[in-house]
Amino acid sequence: MTIALIGAGNVALHLGQRLRACGIVISQVYSRRLERARDLGDLLHATPISQWDALKQNADAYLLAVSDDAIRPVGEALAKRLPKDSLVIHTSGATPCGLLADLFPRAAVFYPLQTLSRNRHLDFFIEVPLCYDAGNPDDLALLAQLARQMSAEVHHLNDEQRARCHLAAVFANNFSNHLFQIAAELLAEQELPFSLIRPLIRETAAKVQEQLPETAQTGPARRGDQATLQRHIAQLSAYPELQTIYQLLSDHIQQSNK
Amino acid sequence: MTIALIGAGNVALHLGQRLRACGIVISQVYSRRLERARDLGDLLHATPISQWDALKQNADAYLLAVSDDAIRPVGEALAKRLPKDSLVIHTSGATPCGLLADLFPRAAVFYPLQTLSRNRHLDFFIEVPLCYDAGNPDDLALLAQLARQMSAEVHHLNDEQRARCHLAAVFANNFSNHLFQIAAELLAEQELPFSLIRPLIRETAAKVQEQLPETAQTGPARRGDQATLQRHIAQLSAYPELQTIYQLLSDHIQQSNK
Repeated sequence: MTIALIGAGNVALHLGQRLRACGIVISQVYSRRLERARDLGDLLHATPISQWDALKQNADAYLLAVSDDAIRPVGEALAKRLPKDSLVIHTSGATPCGLLADLFPRAAVFYPLQTLSRNRHLDFFIEVPLCYDAGNPDDLALLAQLARQMSAEVHHLNDEQRARCHLAAVFANNFSNHLFQIAAELLAEQELPFSLIRPLIRETAAKVQEQLPETAQTGPARRGDQATLQRHIAQLSAYPELQTIYQLLSDHIQQSNK
Repeated sequence: MTIALIGAGNVALHLGQRLRACGIVISQVYSRRLERARDLGDLLHATPISQWDALKQNADAYLLAVSDDAIRPVGEALAKRLPKDSLVIHTSGATPCGLLADLFPRAAVFYPLQTLSRNRHLDFFIEVPLCYDAGNPDDLALLAQLARQMSAEVHHLNDEQRARCHLAAVFANNFSNHLFQIAAELLAEQELPFSLIRPLIRETAAKVQEQLPETAQTGPARRGDQATLQRHIAQLSAYPELQTIYQLLSDHIQQSNK
């Protein structure tokens, strides 16, 4: 199987590396910026291109690892170049599977549910949930097979389910990470290093690997310890926005307990 | 060195086990409920007691692992029984070191900055930051030595710094865990298992072990991707409280970027 990779960002990097590790040939890497295509192409033993004219028409699949906004315009550019029965797969959690179906009836989606950064190697890609969908049964079977080569966590999800995963990931990753940043800033103000709470953050994540977060919940809001809640609100008097966040999340924890 | 442990909850369990592993003798374990004192006493090879009259007066230190509200009444009970120059140490992040100083001039504090649960063994107690404070230099030196036996992360923090750690821990642990719960509920509504985002949560915590959360921040709020933000708000239309949390945290991320 040969795949052409459209895009050279974080998702292209991680998926491309994993595909190659699973014996898939990455034939070409496209990026508008040739040097980015070259960097990733070198890594993946793939030909770098930065012009649509250079895209070969015989790949088994075209994998679009581009920003959500770019999926449609890139699809339109591909439609001018590729046969209509090409398998064109986007990698977005929030974008319907059929966004390009008018251009490519075999439009499909292949969404890794993980935060992928350029500067972080994932030791355990085998654990990354891969969520796929396609308009026809043959492509579904092909994507399922591909996903199972790459990961032990493979899920056929419809648009609504995938969008829900994407939303849940914002709470679990983006917002938690921002709370870590708030904690870091509160510590820095007292000249305390962020490293003080790194073990706590590790254990917070480790706990919910074995239990559900509802069971793992601790703290003054969970206990209904009003004295501590009031003292914390008072400590935040110089930061009205943090007071609001503190109050809102504490209220929500208390309501969830009822 | 011998220590009498007052309390038989999570903190008593974890500190007691670690103290014993470091060669400290736990002479007695006190709990109002004898069966709880017995359970922990068995584990620590310590005598269980449930009456203050049974507390021996010759321990090198008395370690109070009780709830914040109980520190003062327990201190008053101890004052009727123990010599005034006893070393009485509480384990609360949010409580001043000197709360019992009128009863025991050598009042001190020994605060482990970690979430400690009965049903979780900590494989790496050596990494748990131990924060201590005391009113006089000899006790400070003694606590520093004890802490260094137990952990590689040892910090002499004053009341204000310790309270700040406690507050930061609420953001980093209690509130993040609650966001995990919200994510779990959003998934469950679409009949999706929480296990789908466990790898994401692991990676979220793993990232900030090496970098600062500010650097690790990703997502639509960080990118200023208004289309996705609006779509997420719309997806939450059945949950006005989650919309409020989503909006507030997204706004705060966008402000932090400026």
